[in-house]
Amino acid sequence: MSPAQESIKDADFILPPDVDAKSFVAAMDEMRKVVGSENLEIITAAKMMPDSDGHYFNLPREHDLFYCLEKDTFLASAVIVPGSVEDVSAIVKLANKYLVPLWPISRGRNLGYGGAAPRLRGSVVLDMGGRMNKVLNIDDEHATALLEPGVSYFSLYGYLQNNGHKHLWIDSPDLGGGSVVGNALDRGAGYTPYGEHFSMHCGMEVVLPNGEIIRTGMGSLPENNTWQLFQYGYGPYPDGIFSQSNFGIVTKLGIWLMPDPGNAPTIRNTLIDAAVYAQKAEYSLSKEVLTETEVDEIAKKIGVGRWNIYGALYGPEPMRKLQWEVIRSTLMTVPGASFQFAADVEKEPKAKVLHMREETLKGIPNTYELGWLDWTCKNGSLLGFSPISPVTGADASRQYEMVKRRFHEFGFDYIGTFVVGWRELHHIVCLTFDKTDPDSRRRAHRCIELLIDDAAKLGYGEYRTHTAFMDQIASVYNWNNNSTLRFNETLKDALDPNGILAPGKSGIWPKRLRNRGFEI
Amino acid sequence: MSPAQESIKDADFILPPDVDAKSFVAAMDEMRKVVGSENLEIITAAKMMPDSDGHYFNLPREHDLFYCLEKDTFLASAVIVPGSVEDVSAIVKLANKYLVPLWPISRGRNLGYGGAAPRLRGSVVLDMGGRMNKVLNIDDEHATALLEPGVSYFSLYGYLQNNGHKHLWIDSPDLGGGSVVGNALDRGAGYTPYGEHFSMHCGMEVVLPNGEIIRTGMGSLPENNTWQLFQYGYGPYPDGIFSQSNFGIVTKLGIWLMPDPGNAPTIRNTLIDAAVYAQKAEYSLSKEVLTETEVDEIAKKIGVGRWNIYGALYGPEPMRKLQWEVIRSTLMTVPGASFQFAADVEKEPKAKVLHMREETLKGIPNTYELGWLDWTCKNGSLLGFSPISPVTGADASRQYEMVKRRFHEFGFDYIGTFVVGWRELHHIVCLTFDKTDPDSRRRAHRCIELLIDDAAKLGYGEYRTHTAFMDQIASVYNWNNNSTLRFNETLKDALDPNGILAPGKSGIWPKRLRNRGFEI
Ligand SMILES: Cc1cc2nc3c(=O)[nH]c(=O)nc-3n(C[C@H](O)[C@H](O)[C@H](O)COP(=O)(O)OP(=O)(O)OC[C@H]3O[C@@H](n4cnc5c(N)ncnc54)[C@H](O)[C@@H]3O)c2cc1C
Ligand SMILES: Cc1cc2nc3c(=O)[nH]c(=O)nc-3n(C[C@H](O)[C@H](O)[C@H](O)COP(=O)(O)OP(=O)(O)OC[C@H]3O[C@@H](n4cnc5c(N)ncnc54)[C@H](O)[C@@H]3O)c2cc1C
Repeated sequence: MSPAQESIKDADFILPPDVDAKSFVAAMDEMRKVVGSENLEIITAAKMMPDSDGHYFNLPREHDLFYCLEKDTFLASAVIVPGSVEDVSAIVKLANKYLVPLWPISRGRNLGYGGAAPRLRGSVVLDMGGRMNKVLNIDDEHATALLEPGVSYFSLYGYLQNNGHKHLWIDSPDLGGGSVVGNALDRGAGYTPYGEHFSMHCGMEVVLPNGEIIRTGMGSLPENNTWQLFQYGYGPYPDGIFSQSNFGIVTKLGIWLMPDPGNAPTIRNTLIDAAVYAQKAEYSLSKEVLTETEVDEIAKKIGVGRWNIYGALYGPEPMRKLQWEVIRSTLMTVPGASFQFAADVEKEPKAKVLHMREETLKGIPNTYELGWLDWTCKNGSLLGFSPISPVTGADASRQYEMVKRRFHEFGFDYIGTFVVGWRELHHIVCLTFDKTDPDSRRRAHRCIELLIDDAAKLGYGEYRTHTAFMDQIASVYNWNNNSTLRFNETLKDALDPNGILAPGKSGIWPKRLRNRGFEI
Repeated sequence: MSPAQESIKDADFILPPDVDAKSFVAAMDEMRKVVGSENLEIITAAKMMPDSDGHYFNLPREHDLFYCLEKDTFLASAVIVPGSVEDVSAIVKLANKYLVPLWPISRGRNLGYGGAAPRLRGSVVLDMGGRMNKVLNIDDEHATALLEPGVSYFSLYGYLQNNGHKHLWIDSPDLGGGSVVGNALDRGAGYTPYGEHFSMHCGMEVVLPNGEIIRTGMGSLPENNTWQLFQYGYGPYPDGIFSQSNFGIVTKLGIWLMPDPGNAPTIRNTLIDAAVYAQKAEYSLSKEVLTETEVDEIAKKIGVGRWNIYGALYGPEPMRKLQWEVIRSTLMTVPGASFQFAADVEKEPKAKVLHMREETLKGIPNTYELGWLDWTCKNGSLLGFSPISPVTGADASRQYEMVKRRFHEFGFDYIGTFVVGWRELHHIVCLTFDKTDPDSRRRAHRCIELLIDDAAKLGYGEYRTHTAFMDQIASVYNWNNNSTLRFNETLKDALDPNGILAPGKSGIWPKRLRNRGFEI
């Protein structure tokens, strides 16, 4: 045993289960040979990015920027930045050899849903976007793109603008820094007719947990010319099982672009708009949850309603006129309703949310919405809570009341949006808290925990979640004695017998780690 | 041993592999107890429906109405008609006990793709639609339906018409007798904006190969109110792996209906229209493949072009006018193009294809298209060949030439349609042959066999196939050393360790039956 080896101590590392320091170091040594030493960083508690440095454009990859439990609860043991599909496959094989779990991220900006951090402490973050960030192909005629994980909405938009594809629009979620691939894989949503991102993807390349590489849809037909054109290919269509899952690492994703867009309305409450402009303290001296009267006053002050629909009409002028007539005459029957066009609203002294939404509805990525994170404190954090309901007023009201009650009980102002999907409402509830205050964290976490059960009792389930609640949500999707979870576990054990890929993602634990106390 | 048992001989039955007559009879006895004796029929060669009896409305379930190999190549050993999800689960468990393979059908009208018959000779056909044929729910507000497998387009249309849901439209494929569930599971297509049937489904109930029952999407959330509204639910989205597969038996399927439809154009060649009206003999005395001049003459005679686009405009009158202007001015630049409206075309002496398509484009199910099956002989049969390509003129031409060359080589007239999907062309080629003539069958089969390879060389792959070509097509989708097929086999072995569900479907064989010579 060499002196260097002797001095390796478990306490020096953030070790994953079943791995001692020696074999962790051996794994890192082998993985370093694959990616080069500049692309592998071993994390220690001391190396955690300080709270003062971390922000949207300088994201910690080893922990959750918006941590709601302890800062090091979901801490990674290392961060690795592969440069190619072959790198990824080689690392996956080594992960199997050493039982080191991997947690893939694309841009890692999954803020409000756990950020870049792994569900299982000690997992290695695989930063798929750091070096694999190319737009691989744009098909002008069919309006499609083939992307690597690191392509953000900003970079895709810039690429289209600068390379002669200005006629192709993209759908961007509220923040432009996320990964087009990562957002689609987590089944995120935007605001144009292409806002349902997962359904607009077409074709994947995936590294399986055994290191094997597959291409889905037409991609498995060599020499095909329709990988980004036809989703299904032949036989079982697997893409869905690689979303919100731990069955594979996506290395390429096709996505459809908009040649000729339509519209998807969102309905936002007063405070989300108010919070985009300024902190709560600028509106009210109250340290308490705002009363209805106070919210009314804020609405008046910033010139919006208690609920505000933002939308856009697309198509040739005469078409838009006709559509506008229908919308206007329908919605004006709502007592007190009024309309504003971006062009008619003063941009002075500063741009209004209406102007910001106009960009979003044109597919121009931006970061205005970061504003509302700071509602109650500087460097505010977000916990996202996103139940799904039918598109009825009764359901929207019931959800609103359900959330407001718990929020007020725990001292939070209700901030939220309803997004109208194909047939359902995404209710996007934004709980902003102060991560530097343990009590704020505790209240935030407990509030969402209770809401998940409140919602389930009323038949509402979440479409997506923060890592801290993955087990709980999987446990409410429990029809027929948890048959879905058991089905997922069967697939997991078949595809990932050593349990190395993103253990615990979506509540799915591999056999090796199941029922050993890692569930929260 | 009782005299009855002694007299059981293997030769009396169409036994599946690994099952002798005694254990087959024991399996049937147990299954009979589940469904009642009137719902279980054991098949013998003598019981095969005679060719003279079988037709669209009197379908053989034990063999392929349009057999292209021998009539008994894909023969079933029995037909069972379960009456409930519990029946299905019980039968699946017995199938595991006795190693008896099951082949689920919904209405069994998968004509051109193998009909009702199983891929593996001796499998038991599970007629899911015979008794499980209820419309379980219609949600007027959200325009959705929840269906059992036996609901056909005709019966769904009738149900909506007769139960106060006339404002809800359906998308019907060319023939209205198919199952809404079965067609979606085989990823079939129709002609309105809801024509991509699988993407319009929402929520499944599935009996897994071990007898376990799951509900997908929001269905796994007890008390949910969004099972037919939101496709994904939480975690991995599995629905795709139950399409064109043998991973589960679908017992309920949600589907989206059309409150306010748009349009999906198809481009049909002359002969498909000509064939709808009459047999080839009425147009030409030639026994040979028709020449270009002869096809021109037929086009003139029936008043259509060599290629004909059928489509519809939807929405309020002023919108339609504007859309019509755009379409008209764009398409009139094609030399020789002309337009016809259904209202302007005489229905005398008989209705034109234009009138028939008008119904289809209104979602009214019908069976006019059965007509073209008889192009060269009475009771003609169909082999479907359906490659996918980009939506370009060059690809359409290349495909047309590719198919025409092989068709003429084997003595068939080209009959086909191009359907424009989201981003791709479905080329639907209709090879009509005379199943009573072994030479016609041989030519048909060989012709498609060669075309699958021709297409693959040009990068075209099929979106769906007849049972006779399942292995071949799986083998051309072979990127990276057949990684997709191996991935499917991994899933298959995990979900169906005894290999009892639809062995060979989409080229996927369970471990027990793999590489034992059942592949074709
Ligand atoms: C103010 C604010 C507004 C927001 N608005 C929106 C919005 O409008 N719409 C919306 O959808 N979200 C929104 N979010 C949430 C989040 O910022 C975005 O969804 C963001 O795009 C996700 O981060 P990412 O794209 O970098 O994905 P990543 O964090 O890279 O990936 C997301 C998850 O997908 C999985 N994953 C990523 N890459 C891979 C891979 N290659 N293989 C396998 N699995 C992978 C991982 O589990 C990962 O945790 C908002 C957040 C904030 C703070
Ligand atoms: C003249 C003509 C025109 C046609 N036009 C069209 C068209 O426009 N569009 C089109 O899509 N097709 C068309 N077809 C093909 C076919 O008729 C239809 O697709 C028909 O709907 C399929 O039959 P079915 O719905 O009864 O499905 P089934 O035969 O019941 O099912 C189809 C397949 O799905 C699987 N399956 C069925 N039920 C289940 C279940 N419960 N669980 C698991 N798997 C199951 C089975 O493998 C089965 O083989 C046409 C055929 C002809 C002859």
